[in-house]
Amino acid sequence: MIKAAILGATGYAGAELMRILSCHSGVEISYPASHSYAGSKFSDIYPGMKGVLDMVLREDDIEKAAEEADVIFLSLPAGLASSLVTEKILSSSVVIDLGADFRLHDRAVYEKWYHTEHHGPKLLEKAVYGLPEIHRNEIKGKRLIANPGCYTTCSIMTLYPLVKNGLIETKGIVIDAKSGTSGSGRGEKLGSLYCEVNESIKAYGVTNHRHTPEIEQELSEASGKDIVLQFTPHLVPMNRGILADCYARLVDGVSEEDVRKAYSIYEHEPFVRLVDNPPETRYVKGTNCIDISWRIDKRTGNIIALGAIDNLVKGAAGQAVQNMNIAFGLDETEGLSLGAGSPF
Amino acid sequence: MIKAAILGATGYAGAELMRILSCHSGVEISYPASHSYAGSKFSDIYPGMKGVLDMVLREDDIEKAAEEADVIFLSLPAGLASSLVTEKILSSSVVIDLGADFRLHDRAVYEKWYHTEHHGPKLLEKAVYGLPEIHRNEIKGKRLIANPGCYTTCSIMTLYPLVKNGLIETKGIVIDAKSGTSGSGRGEKLGSLYCEVNESIKAYGVTNHRHTPEIEQELSEASGKDIVLQFTPHLVPMNRGILADCYARLVDGVSEEDVRKAYSIYEHEPFVRLVDNPPETRYVKGTNCIDISWRIDKRTGNIIALGAIDNLVKGAAGQAVQNMNIAFGLDETEGLSLGAGSPF
Amino acid sequence: MIKAAILGATGYAGAELMRILSCHSGVEISYPASHSYAGSKFSDIYPGMKGVLDMVLREDDIEKAAEEADVIFLSLPAGLASSLVTEKILSSSVVIDLGADFRLHDRAVYEKWYHTEHHGPKLLEKAVYGLPEIHRNEIKGKRLIANPGCYTTCSIMTLYPLVKNGLIETKGIVIDAKSGTSGSGRGEKLGSLYCEVNESIKAYGVTNHRHTPEIEQELSEASGKDIVLQFTPHLVPMNRGILADCYARLVDGVSEEDVRKAYSIYEHEPFVRLVDNPPETRYVKGTNCIDISWRIDKRTGNIIALGAIDNLVKGAAGQAVQNMNIAFGLDETEGLSLGAGSPF
Amino acid sequence: MIKAAILGATGYAGAELMRILSCHSGVEISYPASHSYAGSKFSDIYPGMKGVLDMVLREDDIEKAAEEADVIFLSLPAGLASSLVTEKILSSSVVIDLGADFRLHDRAVYEKWYHTEHHGPKLLEKAVYGLPEIHRNEIKGKRLIANPGCYTTCSIMTLYPLVKNGLIETKGIVIDAKSGTSGSGRGEKLGSLYCEVNESIKAYGVTNHRHTPEIEQELSEASGKDIVLQFTPHLVPMNRGILADCYARLVDGVSEEDVRKAYSIYEHEPFVRLVDNPPETRYVKGTNCIDISWRIDKRTGNIIALGAIDNLVKGAAGQAVQNMNIAFGLDETEGLSLGAGSPF
Repeated sequence: MIKAAILGATGYAGAELMRILSCHSGVEISYPASHSYAGSKFSDIYPGMKGVLDMVLREDDIEKAAEEADVIFLSLPAGLASSLVTEKILSSSVVIDLGADFRLHDRAVYEKWYHTEHHGPKLLEKAVYGLPEIHRNEIKGKRLIANPGCYTTCSIMTLYPLVKNGLIETKGIVIDAKSGTSGSGRGEKLGSLYCEVNESIKAYGVTNHRHTPEIEQELSEASGKDIVLQFTPHLVPMNRGILADCYARLVDGVSEEDVRKAYSIYEHEPFVRLVDNPPETRYVKGTNCIDISWRIDKRTGNIIALGAIDNLVKGAAGQAVQNMNIAFGLDETEGLSLGAGSPF
Repeated sequence: MIKAAILGATGYAGAELMRILSCHSGVEISYPASHSYAGSKFSDIYPGMKGVLDMVLREDDIEKAAEEADVIFLSLPAGLASSLVTEKILSSSVVIDLGADFRLHDRAVYEKWYHTEHHGPKLLEKAVYGLPEIHRNEIKGKRLIANPGCYTTCSIMTLYPLVKNGLIETKGIVIDAKSGTSGSGRGEKLGSLYCEVNESIKAYGVTNHRHTPEIEQELSEASGKDIVLQFTPHLVPMNRGILADCYARLVDGVSEEDVRKAYSIYEHEPFVRLVDNPPETRYVKGTNCIDISWRIDKRTGNIIALGAIDNLVKGAAGQAVQNMNIAFGLDETEGLSLGAGSPF
Repeated sequence: MIKAAILGATGYAGAELMRILSCHSGVEISYPASHSYAGSKFSDIYPGMKGVLDMVLREDDIEKAAEEADVIFLSLPAGLASSLVTEKILSSSVVIDLGADFRLHDRAVYEKWYHTEHHGPKLLEKAVYGLPEIHRNEIKGKRLIANPGCYTTCSIMTLYPLVKNGLIETKGIVIDAKSGTSGSGRGEKLGSLYCEVNESIKAYGVTNHRHTPEIEQELSEASGKDIVLQFTPHLVPMNRGILADCYARLVDGVSEEDVRKAYSIYEHEPFVRLVDNPPETRYVKGTNCIDISWRIDKRTGNIIALGAIDNLVKGAAGQAVQNMNIAFGLDETEGLSLGAGSPF
Repeated sequence: MIKAAILGATGYAGAELMRILSCHSGVEISYPASHSYAGSKFSDIYPGMKGVLDMVLREDDIEKAAEEADVIFLSLPAGLASSLVTEKILSSSVVIDLGADFRLHDRAVYEKWYHTEHHGPKLLEKAVYGLPEIHRNEIKGKRLIANPGCYTTCSIMTLYPLVKNGLIETKGIVIDAKSGTSGSGRGEKLGSLYCEVNESIKAYGVTNHRHTPEIEQELSEASGKDIVLQFTPHLVPMNRGILADCYARLVDGVSEEDVRKAYSIYEHEPFVRLVDNPPETRYVKGTNCIDISWRIDKRTGNIIALGAIDNLVKGAAGQAVQNMNIAFGLDETEGLSLGAGSPF
């Protein structure tokens, strides 16, 4: 059994990770930790897990965690992970960071978009960007896995086959993404109140959302060109789900068949479903799947590629487990749901 | 492997059953059937199950189903099951009916509340009321299991320890129950439209809801007295969940300790969680659990017992699988979820 | 023009009051005040009112308010109003308190249920319980009007004709009430977050909710007997609306006709609608109306009376304006909506 | 008093029109009609209007309507209006069509996108596209007003200042729009059921939604160039509201100041609010306002212009009343709300 520590176990992503790991046949949760709730039972904070996860939460002390765990999941506020992870920690445990600290290869880009100093720049080159469908082989040997963001997972995977194969103009890409409210976290903020979110939709972070450079990094790498794109996230009155509408200009002469072939790289991916109808977030809810669909518009010369994920699963905790499964040589789908009930 | 047929696989309860069975280690779905969608792939109707349940739906022909299945689940409109099930069917397959046709022991009561003739009165005595926490031993040998209704499961289980032990006055019981909208089914009715349900709550079936005699039958049997009670259901703008508030007058002299002791009959039940705070439906969502809590009000002399279930799981498909597990001698919890993620 | 001050203008009830008064032909908002947002424009806090209510918010100083206003509305945390209102304030302005401080005639009852000292017990006898349909004549001359609570308005009005006419047993009354989330206010509390409220229903304050004694006071007064009743509130995933299911035992021999006649006292009330079908909260949303319906259950001997209001309008701001209209001799319906759009 | 007929009074847009007109000081509803509910009281279909609109619904006979009304509002399925309106009707009544039949100047474009024959092509040139902020002067003398669609109103008004002033490249415009569910109408369709819409978001009509040519027509006219653009609508789990994110490439050299100046054409428009923060649909709910905001992204060279309306008000019934006010020389804002309560 792999022993797992979770630091930040009571945030929404951390709690989803706890839930998924509780059903994982190869993992034992040895060190569940929470800054705010150390000393409480996990199921007192999440009563839905009563009888399943009644363990007492520990202090979020990474050194103790490293002593008791083979893998440490970090689900912490931005900037914290990079000040906690050290070579020593990595020598004893694999670290999978659900936050942003190790996702951007370029420290300067991080500091510009996050308006904060990076505390562990030397570790950046040891980290792998943990998007398995693109970096599976690199993930295998790594000790430090930067689990991608929710919007970014959805956006990158939806556009990757197109940029990788040079089928779209790299200039002018627009990503209009919509997220459920769990993406805003469990913090007691006015903007997260039921009555402030319900019965409304809004854009936020227009032109400056932090997930932008992450998407650009991965798509630039795939295309070999510097991609600068437009990314706009939105808050939707629902608990879970991300839908990303990706708009791009098709390169002249590209056919439907070319596009179909490009997406066929996902054919054997267990968590990618190529669907005919525009994807709906309810159909991936609770699963680690991404549903992808696309349309070419001959009138405009554009392609519209649409991807849908569950922001807490493929966009966070599920993908972290997928990364763990890869890192430890387990079946990649172990513990991860492939089918969504409906209505849920 | 147990071979299972599902007639009515594309209604909400039927589809949830398909989903649960698809994760069940001891079952193979051999005959999924749908009146409306025969010939389609299940995952075309429920795209969330693409890649998991792509099988083609069959005609809802119970005789063919009986040839190909050890257990037949019926999830059909009221009145249909009683005209389909025969001794011959029962001789080859166990039948678990998610509908109401075999729940009421007294045909006259059925016909009065359902305003329709009963087509198989002779089978009534062969049927068992499939509420495992109360009738587990009777379920074991039976070929025809009447799976309880959603409101009824929640109401009966919440009140059972009190009536069984004579702790409450059997006169004057009030059950005020609230249900998510999936309980209204997948029919294209005006009252089920998003804009007709959202941002509102209402009572319906006041004084005449069909689940009333079912609750009365079971509680009367438990108490040994004829119980006539007030049951009022409500429609709540959410997908899933039932909350039942049960009000009753405590018998003079009954103490907190007496009540605690009465509920301790559930102590070892895998699907019953006795909780301190009032139960919330989100904490049982997707699980086969019932959360139960109670308060004695010394001012009024009442006890308020509160129960919460997921109407599609413990209130329908999950309990049907629990019954199947019992009938076939499997671990009762096999395939059934015990912990609820949150937010979900 | 009546000059109006609002202290606590940026809470949900206060803001609704601002909105209603902005459409009132006889009122000028002369002193809008907010403890948290003094110095900001109202429309910066509530952008939906941009162009309509751009005035700058003042300090919540009741003495200044009294200098500049004929009527002062208080929408403040419990316990604050009773420490602010004085004889001097009342000599210059009519005070309408949307909070609980002056609702209970008996200071001891207040202190028991609110667990706090009452700061202005001498003013209690000067206050009138501002439920116009019951106390209209008393309201007319009063300087201090205690605007009723939301649950209480709905519960009292629904049961009043029955208790007033002695048609129900005063023992054993059960009120099971359901409220939208705006009733929890605009405070940044975990339990008010979108993801904690959405897709769930729960009871709270079981046996000890503070609105209980207020309902009991008014119904006891109406019946001439000491009424002790069971009141259970619930949180529903919707913005607005209260539904109260009131259960009581009919006195022997009472007929449908007796009940109909009792409710006919509301016949000419502009804000009471007697409806045939069970009321739905969406049909009173945004209005100052209460919809009331009832059923007698011959099986149980009970009557179930159902009332629905908008908690922020008839349950708070709208009723406050109705009280102001009465106190100042205006048309009682001025500024108040009578019809609800749907879907809204 | 202007006498008004409404044909199609029980659809969501028609009912909202009924509600708005019921509060309009200069209008009397003389002929409310419904194909499905003729003979019923309006308030039996919309109980929220009980006591306000209890009139009996008539047959939807346009000739009778013309005899009894100065203005006829049509809220009918596509294709019906063009077969009903005649020169004779127009000679006696002003017709305001909330449907699409008279919006597109070019019959061929209509027939291509709507896949149906146009029944009144001769009337097309008599019709004016009723977007007051752009065509106010043309509306004044016209007898046939084509009330714009919901998505189109929001999209056109948001982009108009930019295309009118040549500030954006006319090639490559992307409109990603999101709508509440009332936009799908009151029809009993599977896709409109609560459980099919709730907790999910999806795109639909990708590349082929019928509102596309309407947006292109108006923006092409404003710019003097043939604009072909990408329009993608989405279904959001909320009752009301449209948000349109409009992406375009700024023409080289265009400054923030140029953009600000362009939008200043709306400065004195009563229903346009230029806001700093990204607009949220809740802030226009129930009003006839559009909130518009924009950001220039120097990294990408794009401008993102965002508009938000209430689809049933500015996107349908409210704008129809605005058009009527203009056509009959009334104050343009009469009967129309300018401020949105929140939460609502």
